[in-house]
Amino acid sequence: HVDWDLSAAEKGGFDWFMRKEIYEQPKAVADTLLGRHDENGRLTLDEVRISEEELRRIDKIIIIACGTASYAGLVAKYAIEHWTRIPCEVELASEFRYRDPIVGPTTLVVAISQSGETADTLMAIRHAREQRARVLAVCNTNGATIPRESDAVIYTHAGPEISVASTKGFLTQIVACYLLGLYLAQVRGTKFGDEIASTMAELAAMPDAIASVLEDMDPVLKLAADFAEERVVLFLGRHVGYPVALEGALKLKELAYIHAEGFAAGELKHGPIALIEDGLPVFVVIPPRGRDMLHDKVLSNLQEVRARGARTVVLAEADDDEVLPYADVLVPLPKVSTLLQPLLATVPLQMFACELATLKGHDVDQPRNLAKSVTVE
Amino acid sequence: HVDWDLSAAEKGGFDWFMRKEIYEQPKAVADTLLGRHDENGRLTLDEVRISEEELRRIDKIIIIACGTASYAGLVAKYAIEHWTRIPCEVELASEFRYRDPIVGPTTLVVAISQSGETADTLMAIRHAREQRARVLAVCNTNGATIPRESDAVIYTHAGPEISVASTKGFLTQIVACYLLGLYLAQVRGTKFGDEIASTMAELAAMPDAIASVLEDMDPVLKLAADFAEERVVLFLGRHVGYPVALEGALKLKELAYIHAEGFAAGELKHGPIALIEDGLPVFVVIPPRGRDMLHDKVLSNLQEVRARGARTVVLAEADDDEVLPYADVLVPLPKVSTLLQPLLATVPLQMFACELATLKGHDVDQPRNLAKSVTVE
Repeated sequence: HVDWDLSAAEKGGFDWFMRKEIYEQPKAVADTLLGRHDENGRLTLDEVRISEEELRRIDKIIIIACGTASYAGLVAKYAIEHWTRIPCEVELASEFRYRDPIVGPTTLVVAISQSGETADTLMAIRHAREQRARVLAVCNTNGATIPRESDAVIYTHAGPEISVASTKGFLTQIVACYLLGLYLAQVRGTKFGDEIASTMAELAAMPDAIASVLEDMDPVLKLAADFAEERVVLFLGRHVGYPVALEGALKLKELAYIHAEGFAAGELKHGPIALIEDGLPVFVVIPPRGRDMLHDKVLSNLQEVRARGARTVVLAEADDDEVLPYADVLVPLPKVSTLLQPLLATVPLQMFACELATLKGHDVDQPRNLAKSVTVE
Repeated sequence: HVDWDLSAAEKGGFDWFMRKEIYEQPKAVADTLLGRHDENGRLTLDEVRISEEELRRIDKIIIIACGTASYAGLVAKYAIEHWTRIPCEVELASEFRYRDPIVGPTTLVVAISQSGETADTLMAIRHAREQRARVLAVCNTNGATIPRESDAVIYTHAGPEISVASTKGFLTQIVACYLLGLYLAQVRGTKFGDEIASTMAELAAMPDAIASVLEDMDPVLKLAADFAEERVVLFLGRHVGYPVALEGALKLKELAYIHAEGFAAGELKHGPIALIEDGLPVFVVIPPRGRDMLHDKVLSNLQEVRARGARTVVLAEADDDEVLPYADVLVPLPKVSTLLQPLLATVPLQMFACELATLKGHDVDQPRNLAKSVTVE
């Protein structure tokens, strides 16, 4: 059982643990990255007690998780497949158990759980181990049940997360999964050492980039005030921006009890666009312009919803002037590469949900009906 | 390009093509099943021009589709994995193209598109073929582009679907994918001939079962009248009931412009349950009692939302008296096996959306912002 030292987890001047934890994200991400190199600059993951030989035999990765952690998994899927060329599936833990999943000794199951006690995830890894899969836990809580019952663990070292709605948990889970992806790429030789070092350097720069996003939250706070009476908010993204959209929507559901839904932007025309009407708030996550095709596709989705009257809140690179004509509100993001953008784009969405729930007079740290760690199925 | 004979597609006394097409589902499913046996009772799929040897080598199936067709794919995934033990992923066509997917000569890509002209799906199969994957189309339109560019095709033979919102298209896509799953199981020997014959017999009984659901739609029509002023409706399901929940929600979005969302019931406690408040309508798809564990899990989710004040509409086997105490409205379904239940449970949800949109005065066959066949990306 978890027994945080609550004195170390005071609110530090913030109204809510959630807001404090949002601001702790630069440090949390830095701590997740700490000590992951040996003296020769090679990536090392001390707690991954699965031999390199076994890791080279892995031919399938299944990420299992619930809620926000499953969105971290969806982000990680893109990076892991891209870097390792190992097929990677993400599955809800509650679904995994009941669908007779195909796993075996060459399957790596990655179980993501902040608390390490999530009942559905625990049951899922037991099921996977019975079928001789190797299990790696991504977890924030030392000695919790899930890492204890796994073959390996990557701790996120994010420090206690008290708020029921996960924030730094989410960001550090993405980072931990990225470390896993890079480590697999190193072991299997799908990336050269200098390529891995270069991505590690980009990751090392993320705490500062997140801090710079946090420096100017005033527009987001104002947005929350403007949108305080909204009953429905939609979120759009593609590629790694899709799980960011899902996470932005989930935060609003959890905290503001608003009917928010995230969509893969490419699905708009296959149904959800019927919902767009005058004044409906739609958040759109625009990919960096480094991936041109993707950027232009989402830009075109942005134009479509704007043309139908949506009020658009656009998260895009600060100098992305192509989006300006279609953005009622622009939330500028620092320039980073495509796979790292979720670590930035999520932050304003967290703050928006936190502020909106505060304005509505909700208990942000203890939303109705929810528990921090879901230890029953 | 498609050029339906519109005289053959009149509304036949119905107010909308959609309602007509809902009632055509027993025949459409029967037609999808027609002529799939040879004289020895073995399953044959004439248009699958991929050799049995090649099909035996397949080690991964990726279903790509958009919108409703992607939910048919999600249903099919459970059946195909269960019958063939080939890992099966479902991916949105718009996401597939941009994520550098891992496919090769032993991957079978199944592209589901009613029109056979869906631009995102077409681009996705071209991308897959460049990587030497084998492509099988599930399609309703003879000679459309997608089947022409595929190695194989299973036509659903559902007849013209005029309504923008797919109904018989969805059911027959599921059936066609099931035929594929059983055929693969036959070719690879993962099911005995008598097992396949037994499932085929169950499928052959589905048109009558669907007809019996359609016989008593009055409670659903009444429900639509009761819920005409609702602004938000949630849908819950697990396993094959999860895509049914997604489809029920999509139909309401498309037709009634209501903010409806489907959830995997096991995810409730990880966020969405915060949305439940007094009087919120929640549809719950209860699995057959043949799969006890699954049934009891969803029953417990039903109890949770009911305890928090939700008005529950429960789709369950007609004699499932365990759900009665928690059902504000019961929509009874005939007894069928777990994998076939989606073919029944979807029907009342289609009718509910059709009726609700009619009561709201919307153009049911031509919802705002939507086109029948999305031939642009």
